[in-house]
Amino acid sequence: MGIELKDIYVLRLGHRPFRDKRITTHVALVARAFGARGIFIEGEDNQLLKSIYNVLDQWGGKSYFNIEFVSNPKTLVKSWKERGGKVVHLTMYGINIINKLSDFDQINSPLLVIVGSEKVEGWYYYNSDYNIAVGNQPHSEVSALAIFLDRIYKGEELNISFSDAKLTIIPKERGKKVVKNE
Amino acid sequence: MGIELKDIYVLRLGHRPFRDKRITTHVALVARAFGARGIFIEGEDNQLLKSIYNVLDQWGGKSYFNIEFVSNPKTLVKSWKERGGKVVHLTMYGINIINKLSDFDQINSPLLVIVGSEKVEGWYYYNSDYNIAVGNQPHSEVSALAIFLDRIYKGEELNISFSDAKLTIIPKERGKKVVKNE
Repeated sequence: MGIELKDIYVLRLGHRPFRDKRITTHVALVARAFGARGIFIEGEDNQLLKSIYNVLDQWGGKSYFNIEFVSNPKTLVKSWKERGGKVVHLTMYGINIINKLSDFDQINSPLLVIVGSEKVEGWYYYNSDYNIAVGNQPHSEVSALAIFLDRIYKGEELNISFSDAKLTIIPKERGKKVVKNE
Repeated sequence: MGIELKDIYVLRLGHRPFRDKRITTHVALVARAFGARGIFIEGEDNQLLKSIYNVLDQWGGKSYFNIEFVSNPKTLVKSWKERGGKVVHLTMYGINIINKLSDFDQINSPLLVIVGSEKVEGWYYYNSDYNIAVGNQPHSEVSALAIFLDRIYKGEELNISFSDAKLTIIPKERGKKVVKNE
């Protein structure tokens, strides 16, 4: 893998198939590329699933990365905590991650990282173990998730690789080089 | 500002108003929140402009952050280099930023950071000073830009603040607290 995967999953709230397809796709690709083991997506969207599976198929991760649609994310959060996991809600209203880094150094429990869409119900603020801000400015759930996972993995996630990849990039100063693994 | 802004601008290639509106909005918000001074967007999209201006108006940055539409981004790249600036193209096919960090510690020239949409013309690979991969896996231009700027500012960008903000978040463990600056 290039890194030792931690027990981290992402929960994407409030996915609206038409409006959010591309953003949720990017959230899922960040989850995969930055070392999460899977993503739960509130809603149901076969087109989205197809896009993500296509990346897993070409670039690897089918055997590591789970995608699951959930209709009741609150039940997931509750059962996650009951089973001893911790829940982190990423929100610009939370405590800046700069001031919370040491908390996550010590966590060995499975982590569920919640990212919302436009508006997240108050329930999640009060039922998550942590409300963490990746800076207290508006930006994007895509970048918030990336920076959060980057801090957890201390930058090592950028070395991630997938043993079941059909395609592998050979990094180049100019142009593109991709090898097919057969 | 909470940080000392460097001379960094973003160029967003290939914006398609209908398809890319939300992704380009997120790219622009990351540019603002992670310490770029402005964004050039290929194309023209008044709805997009309105969304970004709305954030600048509420959360600050009108006096720091420039938004400009460009019809010929190659001309911009050429003139940027002619005026002594450096051009960085973020692409998963490039050299992993992990192996290039020291290059950017030394740069004092104005930086133009290019992020593409689906497909970027070969020209940009050959006319940028650097092709940099934020990991050699597919994810998102939103996360790639965030991590790149995070490396440039060494995490300090998460302390950014805007003196002309009408709204300021008071970070909270639970719930939301926002003060209006009058």
